[in-house]
Amino acid sequence: MSEASKVEKVIIVGSGPAGWTAAIYAARADLNPLVFAGRPKRDPETIMPGGQLMLTTDVENYPGFPEGITGPAMMSRFEQQGVRFGTRIVTDDGFNPDVSNPDDGHSYSYHDCRRVDLSQRPFVVYGEDDTEYRTHALIIATGATANWLGLENEGRLARSGGGVSACAVCDGALPTFRNKELAVVGGGDSAVEEASYLTKFASKVYMIHRRDELRASKIMAQRAMDNPKMEILWNKIVIDVLGDDMISGVKLKDTKTGDESTLPLGGLFLGIGHTPATAFLEGQLELDEKGYIKLKDPYRAHTSVEGVFGAGDCVDKVYRQAITAAGMGCKAAIDAEHWLSEKGLA
Amino acid sequence: MSEASKVEKVIIVGSGPAGWTAAIYAARADLNPLVFAGRPKRDPETIMPGGQLMLTTDVENYPGFPEGITGPAMMSRFEQQGVRFGTRIVTDDGFNPDVSNPDDGHSYSYHDCRRVDLSQRPFVVYGEDDTEYRTHALIIATGATANWLGLENEGRLARSGGGVSACAVCDGALPTFRNKELAVVGGGDSAVEEASYLTKFASKVYMIHRRDELRASKIMAQRAMDNPKMEILWNKIVIDVLGDDMISGVKLKDTKTGDESTLPLGGLFLGIGHTPATAFLEGQLELDEKGYIKLKDPYRAHTSVEGVFGAGDCVDKVYRQAITAAGMGCKAAIDAEHWLSEKGLA
Repeated sequence: MSEASKVEKVIIVGSGPAGWTAAIYAARADLNPLVFAGRPKRDPETIMPGGQLMLTTDVENYPGFPEGITGPAMMSRFEQQGVRFGTRIVTDDGFNPDVSNPDDGHSYSYHDCRRVDLSQRPFVVYGEDDTEYRTHALIIATGATANWLGLENEGRLARSGGGVSACAVCDGALPTFRNKELAVVGGGDSAVEEASYLTKFASKVYMIHRRDELRASKIMAQRAMDNPKMEILWNKIVIDVLGDDMISGVKLKDTKTGDESTLPLGGLFLGIGHTPATAFLEGQLELDEKGYIKLKDPYRAHTSVEGVFGAGDCVDKVYRQAITAAGMGCKAAIDAEHWLSEKGLA
Repeated sequence: MSEASKVEKVIIVGSGPAGWTAAIYAARADLNPLVFAGRPKRDPETIMPGGQLMLTTDVENYPGFPEGITGPAMMSRFEQQGVRFGTRIVTDDGFNPDVSNPDDGHSYSYHDCRRVDLSQRPFVVYGEDDTEYRTHALIIATGATANWLGLENEGRLARSGGGVSACAVCDGALPTFRNKELAVVGGGDSAVEEASYLTKFASKVYMIHRRDELRASKIMAQRAMDNPKMEILWNKIVIDVLGDDMISGVKLKDTKTGDESTLPLGGLFLGIGHTPATAFLEGQLELDEKGYIKLKDPYRAHTSVEGVFGAGDCVDKVYRQAITAAGMGCKAAIDAEHWLSEKGLA
C-alpha cells in the first residue's frame, strides 16, 4: 500500500465534464492528479463514470463540435486528454489508466469513492474496500442525477434517444421534437421554464402536474397559463410511457378520480428536479437545503472547507450544461493549484 | 434598412469562445442572434474576430481535443456551430454568414461594434458607419487583451509560437518550455503567480521588474523570494526580444543606471495585466476600477442594466481560459433567454 500511503497533491472525485476538465488543468499544472471516476451503476448515490452525458446520444451544444458528437465519445475525448497530461485513475488494476473506447462504452474497472474525512489534514479519501488515500487538496465533481419517474419504458426510451429527456435546453432543439406535441412532467419553476422553452419548437406543450396548482412562482405560473401553446393537465400522474423505438404517448392517471387516459405525444421531458451526488459529504461540507455544495464566492470554486473545491452539477442548480460544468472544473483546478502553491504544497 | 430597423431579440458583441458559445445557445433557443464579430486589427479598442485565441498556435487545454488544436481552427469550429443553428453575422455583404476557413485565417469582412446606447429600450447598437440596430437583449463578450510591451520582436514571436506568451497557465506546460530558463515581466500578484507556476516546468524563472519592490501581496512576494528556482531582477526593463524563429533571450536596461545587458532565455511571459475591451460601455454599465464588467450575482451573467449580459474575459480577471469564457457565454445566453421569456419578448 505504498502508493496509497503517500500524500497526493489533489484527488478529483467524479469524471463528467467538470471532473475531467479539472484533471486536464491539474495535470498540466504538474499536480499529478488522481481520479475516482465512479462505478457504472445507476442509483442516486453512485457516481457514474463519464457522468450524465453517458446517457446522451447527441450533444449538439458543446462548443467545438459543429457536427455534434455522442455523449460517450465526448467524455472519452475528455478522459484521453486528462490521461495524456498525466492524470492517474484508480482502477481494479491499480493506477494504470484504462482509457475507455468510445465504441464499447466506458470501462467497468474504475473505482468509486463513497466516503471522505475532511476533519483530518491531509484529507482522507476512502476508496473501495476502504483503502485510504491522503490528499492535500480535494476537488468534488460528483455531479447530479435528474429525478426520473422510475418507469421501465421511461428509462429505456431515455437511454436510446427515443424522445424522453430530462433537459429541455439540451434536447429541445433536436429535429425530432419540432412541431410535435410534447409534455413536461412537473409544476415548479424549472418545469415551467422547460415547458415555456419547448413552446418555441413544439406545436403544443402539455404540463402534467400531480396537484391542482403550480409550485412555480406566481409570475412564471401566470406566464404558463397565458401561453396559448401551453396546456396544464391538473391532478395527473404518468403511469406508463408508450412506444417502441420512439415515444408515442403516455398513460395518465387522475389523482382525484383514479381515471386512466392516454395522451399521444412526440416527446416527454422530466422537470421534477435533480439530486446532487453529495450525500457522502453531509455534515462535513456546507451544502444548501437541496444538497448542492455552497461556494464561498460564487465566482470561484472554494467551498466551506479550505482545500476542498467544488465543480459541476453538484454545485450548479441553474445551468447544468456540459460547457458550464467544464468551466467550473477548470476554475477548481486553478484555485486548487493557487491554494497548494500558497501553502507551499504544490 | 428594413433589416436594421427591426428589433432583434438578442445581439452579441464579440466572437471569442464566450461570444460564439452564447450564439450557439441563443440560436438553439430560437432567438436568431445577431453577432458583431469585430475587425481584425490589433489595438486595445478593437475587437478581433475569434478573440485572443486567433494568436494562439496550440490549444492543449480546451477539453474535447486530446491531440490539441490550433486557436484559429478551434474558433472556426465554434463559429460554424453557431451558424449551423441560425446565428447571423454582420458582414460587408449583409447578414450572410461568411464562415471562415481555418486554413486561411478569419474572414476580414466582419463588422465591429464600437457604440451602444443602453438608455433607450430597445437598446441601440451602432454598427460601422453608425447603422442603428435595435435589440431587446444584449450580450457583451468583447474580451480583453493582454498588455504587451509593444516591441516588434515580441509581437512577431508571440504570433508565431516562438516562445513569447501572455498566459503561463495556457502555455507553460508546452514541451518547448521544459527545463528552460524562462522569464516573467511584471511585479504584481498575477506575475508572481505566473512565475511560481512556471517553476514547475522551468529550470529557472526570472522575474523582470521595473521597480525595486514587488507590487504583489506580501505573502506572494515572500514566496517568490523564497523559491530557489526564482530570481528577481530588480529595476530592469526589456528593451528588445532576441531570436529568429524562437526566442533566444532579451535585452535589458537598468532603470537606475541605464546599463544594458543580455539575458539568455528559452521563453518570455508577460505578466503586466490585461485590458478589457469595455471602454465603449463606460458610463452606461457598471464596470470595476480596471474596466471589467461587474455582474449582479457573480454566478450569473446579469449586469447592472437589465437585459444586458456579460461573458468571457471582459468580465473575468481571474481565470481567462477558453473553457471558462465558453461556460460564461452559455450562462449569458440562458439568462438572456429566461429574461426575454419572462418579459414576453422571446
